[in-house]
Amino acid sequence: MTKKLNDFFGKPVAVVNIGLASMAQPMRDQAVPVVDLDWQPPKEGVVRLTVTRTGIDIDEANEEAIRKIKAARPVLVGMGKAIDVIPGYHKNLYLHAGPPITWERMCGPTRAAVMGALIYEGRAKDEKEAEKLAASGEIEFAPCHHYHAVGPMAGVVSPSMPVFIVENKTFGNKAYCTQNEGLGKVLRYGGMGEDVYARLKWMENVLYPALDAALRTLPDGIDLKSMIAQALHMGDECHNRNRAATSLFLRAVAPALARTSKDNETLAQVIEFIDKNDHFFLNLSMPAGKAAVEPAEGTPGSTIVTIMARNGTDFGIQLAGLPGKWFTAPAGMVQGLYFPGFSEEDANPDIGDSTMTETAGYGGFAMAAAPAIVKFVGGTPSDAIANTLEMYEITFSEHEAFTIPFLNFRGSPLGMDVRKIMETGILPKINTGISHKKPGIGGIGAGILRAPEACFRDAFEEFRKTFC
Amino acid sequence: MTKKLNDFFGKPVAVVNIGLASMAQPMRDQAVPVVDLDWQPPKEGVVRLTVTRTGIDIDEANEEAIRKIKAARPVLVGMGKAIDVIPGYHKNLYLHAGPPITWERMCGPTRAAVMGALIYEGRAKDEKEAEKLAASGEIEFAPCHHYHAVGPMAGVVSPSMPVFIVENKTFGNKAYCTQNEGLGKVLRYGGMGEDVYARLKWMENVLYPALDAALRTLPDGIDLKSMIAQALHMGDECHNRNRAATSLFLRAVAPALARTSKDNETLAQVIEFIDKNDHFFLNLSMPAGKAAVEPAEGTPGSTIVTIMARNGTDFGIQLAGLPGKWFTAPAGMVQGLYFPGFSEEDANPDIGDSTMTETAGYGGFAMAAAPAIVKFVGGTPSDAIANTLEMYEITFSEHEAFTIPFLNFRGSPLGMDVRKIMETGILPKINTGISHKKPGIGGIGAGILRAPEACFRDAFEEFRKTFC
Repeated sequence: MTKKLNDFFGKPVAVVNIGLASMAQPMRDQAVPVVDLDWQPPKEGVVRLTVTRTGIDIDEANEEAIRKIKAARPVLVGMGKAIDVIPGYHKNLYLHAGPPITWERMCGPTRAAVMGALIYEGRAKDEKEAEKLAASGEIEFAPCHHYHAVGPMAGVVSPSMPVFIVENKTFGNKAYCTQNEGLGKVLRYGGMGEDVYARLKWMENVLYPALDAALRTLPDGIDLKSMIAQALHMGDECHNRNRAATSLFLRAVAPALARTSKDNETLAQVIEFIDKNDHFFLNLSMPAGKAAVEPAEGTPGSTIVTIMARNGTDFGIQLAGLPGKWFTAPAGMVQGLYFPGFSEEDANPDIGDSTMTETAGYGGFAMAAAPAIVKFVGGTPSDAIANTLEMYEITFSEHEAFTIPFLNFRGSPLGMDVRKIMETGILPKINTGISHKKPGIGGIGAGILRAPEACFRDAFEEFRKTFC
Repeated sequence: MTKKLNDFFGKPVAVVNIGLASMAQPMRDQAVPVVDLDWQPPKEGVVRLTVTRTGIDIDEANEEAIRKIKAARPVLVGMGKAIDVIPGYHKNLYLHAGPPITWERMCGPTRAAVMGALIYEGRAKDEKEAEKLAASGEIEFAPCHHYHAVGPMAGVVSPSMPVFIVENKTFGNKAYCTQNEGLGKVLRYGGMGEDVYARLKWMENVLYPALDAALRTLPDGIDLKSMIAQALHMGDECHNRNRAATSLFLRAVAPALARTSKDNETLAQVIEFIDKNDHFFLNLSMPAGKAAVEPAEGTPGSTIVTIMARNGTDFGIQLAGLPGKWFTAPAGMVQGLYFPGFSEEDANPDIGDSTMTETAGYGGFAMAAAPAIVKFVGGTPSDAIANTLEMYEITFSEHEAFTIPFLNFRGSPLGMDVRKIMETGILPKINTGISHKKPGIGGIGAGILRAPEACFRDAFEEFRKTFC
């Protein structure tokens, strides 16, 4: 009968075991598949922070931060060029993913994306000129997050790039993100070359005007919160799997595209561009998360992580209770699957603002909703489920709007609490794309890694010293 | 720790228990959720059929039937009106779902769909006239399956209805199905009225010409096998959940629709009609299954079920080894979820050819790929997983092309073997829509039921008497 039960089971995750392997022995004896979680008992000597010096109950503060995030209603309301719509933008401002970084310390793909953007903008005629200009001090570099924006991978935004405008209808704040170029040799992965710039020009001069015209005919915009919730029931987690969400977005915008199209061949090419890029929705999933979480920034006494972002050199985070203050550590290496001809030696360290999705309660934290993602980032469906189950240990709440069917519609893990990260020793698990470390080449794979401990420890200590 | 393991688990299916409840006690003791399968030990006195009188090895015969089904490559190649493209069609031929049935024995929704079709065709000016004509003997009724067609619910096909043409590129056989009207008060659910006929006319005069023109520009057609395989990784099972497949179909056809559109408002309305009907792909999923399984009909010595269909009065099946011979039993009642204002008292017995999907190795048999379907048909995600696991017990093979991520990409259960059904006592489990039993009202819900045993027992006995 043991064999029969085993055959019958078809090897889905059966038991998730935390701690001692012997815990699950009775199940192993029944030939029930067991997933052993990468879990450690609480760290020695981590003080439990409960109340601030000024008498703020930290759990209540976190409840308040989470209330704001759950109340968010991110809606795609329109588009525009960065310089026209992002407050404070100017012609010499070039944004990048992650925490602040100087030209000198930028990794290969970020330097490539900056140089490529300068060529795309007509500020330099070739890479040599672009490098000189980038190093000259004339160009101002700043994190996307400092301008309510998020950028995948290198995340470079330049003045004439079109961006999506996502408004949080509950609080009125807006977030911004460029259009997704696709995979492989593209600017955000550090790809350079005429084909890369030509694609960006087509996205500026054909794709953007078509989407912009369509969106202008949709007075209510496109509800991204509902779209992400539906996609989580369709095998996406909305970080590295966006096939369902991209489909739902196309379904939502296509009738308006048709009504506003002046040329049907162009219309067909616009639809084909979106259809051929299952990651198109990532650049809507990210600003939806940014728009949802930003109102929680500055919640007094909250230990919730509101920003988690990488620039390919440093990994940086911010806490709701310490707004504007970055805590950084060296960016880690990704364990993943590589495109043919590439390997770990080619890989740049972890990069991009796409961890906005995990910060907002989906992405890698919702991998149990997306078992098929393992074909892209590696591992097994059981690992995907274990990732989500483990993240409940370091999050303060669960997002009722983002439910996971396989976990009987349990809400996804929401709101990393730096206290729980320190107490459990469990570090946030992220799935991500992988860039080649050399400038100009682009994307070479995707995989999974944990955030570095140091930035969370420093944030925890700073919070303790400042408030407790 | 027991409580912690339980919390941690978030209640996905943990253990599937077959037979004695005590089997799973060690797991219950660990607070691991347990699914008890509705399973019985092999029936007393069921002879194991292994070889026919003429020396055919039945397992080899079934291997051959399964080889044909797996080799199938169903492709949407075009459209046309039933009378123009279905071989042998004539102006008085009205097809219906399920096994053969006379006007006198037809259930309410099937009678309604026939009367509605006669009014839609202009053969009758009202229901009274339609009823008289239907009973007059002038109209010939036949199962869709007798004309290589499949029809959801009442499944009525009339001469001027447009149908999809699905060709099995491996064997050259074709299957046919009408366009999906949507849910609620629609003809296939037995809905009657001006709004129903107007929608059918719009589908004939606007939707069909647009899709037909688009398909004529796609020389390779649309590969439905690949689309179904992808949809199973996106939370569909392609019987009662087709949201992902409908999205993928729209993505595939939209560029061609744009290129062939003469009027963009019409184009927008065509896209909107498909977008507003997540069941649109059902009428492609069904003929894809029919085209795939039909070549297995007539495989000498095979005990594989090639047809499973209901007309709302009778449930009928056919075996590969006894082609053309129907075995029937009274159609069962569906356990399900009802639309507001309706209940079990209103429900017609089980109806439709949509069980073609289970027969072809997806649909209800692949429910483990579609946990969110329980919001439509009832039950829990654990039940959905248990359904698939149980069906492996009565199927001869697994479909490598249709994999289930949550079961670690195991192939879906393929090819019901009437011998296994008799030996295990496990009856096929189906998910389905529910029609109101009174003519004219339409769809009132969806749910789950098992096929009746009698038709499988009769088929098994007939096979044994004839060949063994």
